[in-house]
Amino acid sequence: MRNHQKPSGAPIHKYRPYHEQIRVDLPDRTWPGNRIEVAPRWCAVDLRDGNQALIDPMSPERKRVMFELLVKMGYKEIEVGFPSASQTDFDFVRQLIEDDVIPEDVTIQVLTQAREHLIKRTYESIAGAKQAIVHLYNSTSVLQREVVFRTDQQGIIDIALEGARLCRQYEKTIPETAVYYEYSPESYTGTELEFAVDVCNQVIEVFEPTPDRKVIINLPATVEMATPNVYADSIEWMSRHLAHRENVILSLHPHNDRGTAIAAAELGYMAGADRIEGCLFGNGERTGNVDLVALGINLLTQGIDPQIDFSDIDHVKRTAEYCNQLPVPERSPWAGDLVFTAFSGSHQDAIKKGFEAMEARAKAAGVSVDEIEWAVPYLPIDPKDLGRSYEAVIRVNSQSGKGGVAYLLKTDHSLDLPRKLQIEFSGVVQAKTDAEGGEVSSGQIWSIFSDEYLPARAADDKWGRFELLSTRTQSDMSGDVTLDVTLRDGDEHVAAAGAGNGPIAAFLKVLGERGFEISLYDYVEHTLGAGGDAHAAAYVELQVEDQRLWGVGIDGDISTASLKAIVSAVNRAIRSRTHEGELAGV
Amino acid sequence: MRNHQKPSGAPIHKYRPYHEQIRVDLPDRTWPGNRIEVAPRWCAVDLRDGNQALIDPMSPERKRVMFELLVKMGYKEIEVGFPSASQTDFDFVRQLIEDDVIPEDVTIQVLTQAREHLIKRTYESIAGAKQAIVHLYNSTSVLQREVVFRTDQQGIIDIALEGARLCRQYEKTIPETAVYYEYSPESYTGTELEFAVDVCNQVIEVFEPTPDRKVIINLPATVEMATPNVYADSIEWMSRHLAHRENVILSLHPHNDRGTAIAAAELGYMAGADRIEGCLFGNGERTGNVDLVALGINLLTQGIDPQIDFSDIDHVKRTAEYCNQLPVPERSPWAGDLVFTAFSGSHQDAIKKGFEAMEARAKAAGVSVDEIEWAVPYLPIDPKDLGRSYEAVIRVNSQSGKGGVAYLLKTDHSLDLPRKLQIEFSGVVQAKTDAEGGEVSSGQIWSIFSDEYLPARAADDKWGRFELLSTRTQSDMSGDVTLDVTLRDGDEHVAAAGAGNGPIAAFLKVLGERGFEISLYDYVEHTLGAGGDAHAAAYVELQVEDQRLWGVGIDGDISTASLKAIVSAVNRAIRSRTHEGELAGV
Repeated sequence: MRNHQKPSGAPIHKYRPYHEQIRVDLPDRTWPGNRIEVAPRWCAVDLRDGNQALIDPMSPERKRVMFELLVKMGYKEIEVGFPSASQTDFDFVRQLIEDDVIPEDVTIQVLTQAREHLIKRTYESIAGAKQAIVHLYNSTSVLQREVVFRTDQQGIIDIALEGARLCRQYEKTIPETAVYYEYSPESYTGTELEFAVDVCNQVIEVFEPTPDRKVIINLPATVEMATPNVYADSIEWMSRHLAHRENVILSLHPHNDRGTAIAAAELGYMAGADRIEGCLFGNGERTGNVDLVALGINLLTQGIDPQIDFSDIDHVKRTAEYCNQLPVPERSPWAGDLVFTAFSGSHQDAIKKGFEAMEARAKAAGVSVDEIEWAVPYLPIDPKDLGRSYEAVIRVNSQSGKGGVAYLLKTDHSLDLPRKLQIEFSGVVQAKTDAEGGEVSSGQIWSIFSDEYLPARAADDKWGRFELLSTRTQSDMSGDVTLDVTLRDGDEHVAAAGAGNGPIAAFLKVLGERGFEISLYDYVEHTLGAGGDAHAAAYVELQVEDQRLWGVGIDGDISTASLKAIVSAVNRAIRSRTHEGELAGV
Repeated sequence: MRNHQKPSGAPIHKYRPYHEQIRVDLPDRTWPGNRIEVAPRWCAVDLRDGNQALIDPMSPERKRVMFELLVKMGYKEIEVGFPSASQTDFDFVRQLIEDDVIPEDVTIQVLTQAREHLIKRTYESIAGAKQAIVHLYNSTSVLQREVVFRTDQQGIIDIALEGARLCRQYEKTIPETAVYYEYSPESYTGTELEFAVDVCNQVIEVFEPTPDRKVIINLPATVEMATPNVYADSIEWMSRHLAHRENVILSLHPHNDRGTAIAAAELGYMAGADRIEGCLFGNGERTGNVDLVALGINLLTQGIDPQIDFSDIDHVKRTAEYCNQLPVPERSPWAGDLVFTAFSGSHQDAIKKGFEAMEARAKAAGVSVDEIEWAVPYLPIDPKDLGRSYEAVIRVNSQSGKGGVAYLLKTDHSLDLPRKLQIEFSGVVQAKTDAEGGEVSSGQIWSIFSDEYLPARAADDKWGRFELLSTRTQSDMSGDVTLDVTLRDGDEHVAAAGAGNGPIAAFLKVLGERGFEISLYDYVEHTLGAGGDAHAAAYVELQVEDQRLWGVGIDGDISTASLKAIVSAVNRAIRSRTHEGELAGV
């Protein structure tokens, strides 16, 4: 069995291995024998490092939404901006302080370079805050010294010390604020360890840390340059050599260039760090910062409290997507649309048996399933603990080789279903075709789809409590829209009106007044077909009382399509309750 | 500086830490002192493990495209299916063999469970192949033994041995095929190490490996359950305890539940493994398999030849997206749309200085920049080596706090630009506003956008060699479309016709006949506005000769919009050559 791999022709001569650039030598390392047993201190940098890396940086409104999310989840140290570098960051920090929205136990953190006018401005930005962390940085790497700063090691130390001294000086201008310090030797992974510890130790002397006022030393993998065990070795080395270690909070800030930021954070924490900086879902420059969601939930799966609330992960995801205007990938750990989905028959069988075994075990012990140890094959966490559910996608044997259900709807009907709706609809098709067996034609799939999501054309086939009869929207350009609708509600025709920032919001208010507690989880719309009379398809994922489900609407008018989609989801919610023997009216 | 973090209320009592489930004890580990110095044997499992996890599994055509991509990139061991489990997989394997498309030095691999009728069918599927790896597996974990198989360790060993013996027996039915073996104790990470090695060693005895016919022992992290150093410890332990180690190819198959699959593969490889199984961009069940692209390019950055061709990463990405019908995330290592983009001014400045320093260094040495060591801050690899380019996104100071360029186009003109076009257009705006400084209004942005991408309304403002005057498409439902267009080419009106699987393909043929070598890299279309007379916007990314650029088209007809987008890109390509002093006609 020979290995037939051949040289690729890639210009490997251009790249020097990390160990030839930076020496990290720790044969007596102890971290590989350690285990994580308690959550680190977290610092969320979404509003700074994350925001910096967006094509469209967050508006003040989106920033506020992100801040509130982070606070609600339980983050107590939040880097809120680089106020001396941008007026919007400055204004945002002022707004947080002046609007008095920072809880007592939350400390905001602001980044600054080690230059006087920037430091001065930084202190102006935090005046009036109860407490704040001033995060001072300068770049220390061999490469940056050479090509950017054109200075030697002493020159870099001078920049850092001058910055630290200026901080101590300006700190006196805001005596009512408890100021704490963080120092980062930026581009730490490209810096000789002996030099990195020298800079840090000299800065520590200026900040004079005490047990009550420790200083944070943050060692960023500004660029991830080696396997994560090397970062861990370097952290253990630094932890051994930092001065006043007992008064230092050793912090990690991994980036994900090599795709190993989560590992670097975990191994670095095992190697002696106390604190981790990162972003939700790994947002940040290039491949991003380390993913705080993955790190936190990884702890939970080991029976360790992350001290962060992940119980409604879809809400966290939706909010981050809104703020960052970037989707969370389908396979993002613990949060992606596909991570609690099993496609393989053998996986599904094992999962089913795992659930059954848990029920039997709970019954035997006379307790509820939630009180016993989670043990289901292929599901390392109970999706319920994140507000999610497990989905078995049983593939419909449709026209072997011509693609599955979602593919046929796309090819034959131009419908491009969102992933989670694809999963939901697979279950619908499966339930309706289980008895028959054999292959399912594209025609059958379309008929099942229309019956489930779209109002039937023939009056005698109609089901669903509501039907949209007419709509009218008006906007006075103030940003608000007023909506007038005529609805069929059972046998009754009803006229109703609502207002909101768009027709969907307005319509949800109309339904709210009819007793439905509904929130919108997802909304996607696209054109249908390629004709000049293009129709649009709208898809909405709603929480209707305690049910999460999808609705679909198709119409020549985009806004009408979205309202039809809401009606579709609500009708399905009502029907499923009726099927379960509950009342049809909520 | 107290830590104010509080208990989250998460049900941590449900989760038992990994070390209480599986004992991995290796205080004399040596792997943390090792370094990776040569590429592992790769095995690409996109067509099996990857395909299994798609909502819409690949059609035979998409499978063939994926197979050809993997071969072209240089993968020599390719798992092509689970032929005994699905007719489509069986047919696909037969087709590869009967169409004789498997190169001499490529070995296909097929997965099978350890049951006789499945094994029999597996050998039928590979009859006629020059060589093949039969990959036998059964599940060995504590949990699966208990809840799925309800058997003890001996029962699991019996299943494995019976399977191995049947393989040896059926191997005789296809004497013309060189059969190699791989065995996987599935759910290895949930299996006691002593038991895992016992099963493997007994299976090895049945397969009777020799130096010429080694056996592959594959240790899958079917579910990733612990930090990656623990997986590495377990691999080093197994490597020490496997029988006939010299005739065993130790293979890794990490999944990414905790987000640390890349690290697990790297540390496991350092711990003694020889081979890694994974998928392009980490496709696969739940959070996916380990990402072969990240692993390979990580090697390249260390001066190690991955023995895989990543020189046109966009082509690899585009093909994988087509086959998997799943997007590669924006921040996916080495390949995402945003990973070679710098937004921060200080990063851009450092990168610029890095480029300048390299040029100076090359000049001093009298060589080209491509011959010297790559050393640019924040860019761990030369994007050119992957067929990409570095983009500095200089944010336009547009209406501070009201969002950036892309945001304004979306809000005010309903245009939802693809990421890479957002980046391209930022550069256009920057170039046009550099001189003026200050804020840029939404009106100015729109005027720059229309002038750059859309044909001017007033005839005297018109630029661009081509203009679309009329189009007609016809389809005979065979899948092919014929297109008739009238074009303005300079001052001439020209009628032309083409055919293809869609209007875009047909139009590219028309332009091909006019001397333009064009390929389509990306295509996105969406509706505009919310009226009943909805228009559509189309965006295309084209390679026009040696230029990669975007075009935009807006029209009431979706198909016309896409043709207009192509005209827009081609006109821009021609203009940029003219600006560079080259000939306008190609």
